[in-house]
Amino acid sequence: MNAEIISIGSEHLLGEIVNTDAPYLSQRLAALGIEVERQITIGDDEKSIASSLEEALRRARMVITIGGLGPTPDDLTKKVIAKVAEEQLVLNEEILSEIEGKFKEEKKSMPSDNIKQAFLPRDSHALKNRVGIAPGFILETRNRIIIALPGPYNELVPMFEEEAIPYLKGRLKIREVIKSFILRTTGLPESKVAENLKDIMKKSKNPRLSLLAHENIVDIILVAKAGNEKTADRLIEGLEKKIGRCLGNYNFGTGKQTLEEVVGYLLYMRKKSIAVAESCTGGLISHRLTNVPGSSNYFLGSVVAYSDKIKRERLGVKKTTLEKYGAVSEKTVGEMAKGIKKVTKSNFGLGVTGIAGPTGATEEKPIGLVYIALADKDKVETQEFKFRGEREIIKAKVANAALDMVRRHLLK
Amino acid sequence: MNAEIISIGSEHLLGEIVNTDAPYLSQRLAALGIEVERQITIGDDEKSIASSLEEALRRARMVITIGGLGPTPDDLTKKVIAKVAEEQLVLNEEILSEIEGKFKEEKKSMPSDNIKQAFLPRDSHALKNRVGIAPGFILETRNRIIIALPGPYNELVPMFEEEAIPYLKGRLKIREVIKSFILRTTGLPESKVAENLKDIMKKSKNPRLSLLAHENIVDIILVAKAGNEKTADRLIEGLEKKIGRCLGNYNFGTGKQTLEEVVGYLLYMRKKSIAVAESCTGGLISHRLTNVPGSSNYFLGSVVAYSDKIKRERLGVKKTTLEKYGAVSEKTVGEMAKGIKKVTKSNFGLGVTGIAGPTGATEEKPIGLVYIALADKDKVETQEFKFRGEREIIKAKVANAALDMVRRHLLK
Repeated sequence: MNAEIISIGSEHLLGEIVNTDAPYLSQRLAALGIEVERQITIGDDEKSIASSLEEALRRARMVITIGGLGPTPDDLTKKVIAKVAEEQLVLNEEILSEIEGKFKEEKKSMPSDNIKQAFLPRDSHALKNRVGIAPGFILETRNRIIIALPGPYNELVPMFEEEAIPYLKGRLKIREVIKSFILRTTGLPESKVAENLKDIMKKSKNPRLSLLAHENIVDIILVAKAGNEKTADRLIEGLEKKIGRCLGNYNFGTGKQTLEEVVGYLLYMRKKSIAVAESCTGGLISHRLTNVPGSSNYFLGSVVAYSDKIKRERLGVKKTTLEKYGAVSEKTVGEMAKGIKKVTKSNFGLGVTGIAGPTGATEEKPIGLVYIALADKDKVETQEFKFRGEREIIKAKVANAALDMVRRHLLK
Repeated sequence: MNAEIISIGSEHLLGEIVNTDAPYLSQRLAALGIEVERQITIGDDEKSIASSLEEALRRARMVITIGGLGPTPDDLTKKVIAKVAEEQLVLNEEILSEIEGKFKEEKKSMPSDNIKQAFLPRDSHALKNRVGIAPGFILETRNRIIIALPGPYNELVPMFEEEAIPYLKGRLKIREVIKSFILRTTGLPESKVAENLKDIMKKSKNPRLSLLAHENIVDIILVAKAGNEKTADRLIEGLEKKIGRCLGNYNFGTGKQTLEEVVGYLLYMRKKSIAVAESCTGGLISHRLTNVPGSSNYFLGSVVAYSDKIKRERLGVKKTTLEKYGAVSEKTVGEMAKGIKKVTKSNFGLGVTGIAGPTGATEEKPIGLVYIALADKDKVETQEFKFRGEREIIKAKVANAALDMVRRHLLK
């Protein structure tokens, strides 16, 4: 079973909103074994809606429309679907009383325009809207399934989960399952990952492999097709192990797992605490560590030491170190890591210093030069890095490298 | 001039990423008077890329492809464009040495796969990639313009701004100009902003107005169409003033200006320094302040005090205060703000404490309860807030409210 998604709304074409509906639906449909082959976005224009709907119905067995179900004249989706499917719009009494009920609940009278929303294509299956007003529907016609959903994400998701999926599960004999799996790596450039996996990528048609790179993290995406979930899982599992062997401990996690979650998990399991002394990352590492629920179990706190004075007074970096080696140096970062460990009495002290740009660079210390140090009870480990990019990109890359240094240390 | 955008990448169809490239490009093209009529998303599949490219070229004068320019075998965009346009791929020496230079800079050897990226369609105009590796290009063929851009947002944006737009401006005779302008507000809910602007929104057809809300910031977007830039600017200017009067100092900036930029600018102009004591935001406020280039001029540093112990020892919060009122209280946040001001000797001390969830809430102190304090040389000002949302949303809302408190204080 293949599907296409048509998002309708001129606000998309003006770039005023980011489409989160289509990714959500694509993910949910894949899990049902329905392969989304195309996503199309068009404006509130009758001709465009009609032509893209007709094209999609030629190519795909299932077409999902998003948006254009409101009460105003630029909401055209229902009208066009009815026309293309040659069905009449008829009043659905149950939906009408639902809509009336919602206005009563908020003690408002229902504007007459909203009556339009209770009209659905004849013989369609109504999808109730628990959150908002506009109902959706499923229309089966000429061996095709058309699903119309409202645009707002917080209305679309519960409608799809609670109303559409149960209907689809009952109606469809699902013959094929598509499952995807992600292996996350850090520390290797994309081309190096590709090189390591060259043979596997060439040979493997199912699961199919692709790579996605962002700020020193490279994701390896495996997509398997099979007759049932079990077989798909087995296909993925077999390949996942092979890939894992090629990646060693560059592979830090799977799925949507973040480096901060992995680090948090390892700290929690080993009953260790951490504190951070940040200079060029300016609080980003702490922000990311504290994005993880429950991080207060192992994250004690941090000092963002932007000025040399704070490096000295709050972290105990020596005046002579700063004078002799500078704030961006191996020596300084080591003292920062030891300092934050000492003042917070944490098990680990993580320190970073560097030049994020666009200013502050010198001949010997260019933009992107970064030192990271990790102190434990025995010693301090430091590393030099050279990153490319703009200020925020460099900050993100440094945060990833620093979190990875902690991860590698905890895995030793 | 009409355009279509084709986003290429199987990760889109699996719902693994949200497409921010297409909205950005749509907005920028509109500003150039180029109307985006359709956005299409397809997988890394040669046939789909070819067919959607051919279809788009039939309908539109300009087609922009996003993604598929990487060094791996699943990056097919260039190959397909060359085939459809009947052009050969030829080695671009300048681009090759650029790519080699980038690997040298990071002291890595270039994997042989990256050579592929230096091949571009014959007679195409190369678009340099300042941030990443993959170059883009513009190919003019049979009265059509094809623009190929890389997928990562942070690579696509500078390439389009710095390389593609100057080329397009030189090549195209632009007859209609669409200009947009954004007024940014914080502190008012979207419905309240809409109420304040009701009359203006109804009356104004050109510029057209729309609202966009995110994490306690509401943007008012003005879009004007005119025969030339001057007229469009005049249309916007007239309305902008009217709107400004309705918003008072809820309006903190324009365009892409952020609260941290405005706060940074005000601190810099007034020659004042700031330091931050963060609890529930976990470093986010410091991270945002330090995203602004030159922030080292006024941002001294911060203490992320996740544990009570660090609140006491590093910020001087009294033990009795924590025992009597708890860590999330007006009293504690006031002492945090005063404490960070004192230990860093800054002009302003900003303190935040609260419950970001999902755990840590009690009957009296629910998730989203937040206290923010700002200390200057004379006194401490504190405010209580109640925010809704998940952990990361709450963190973002608190950061906005805290930065806004500083802004308002500096404007007094």
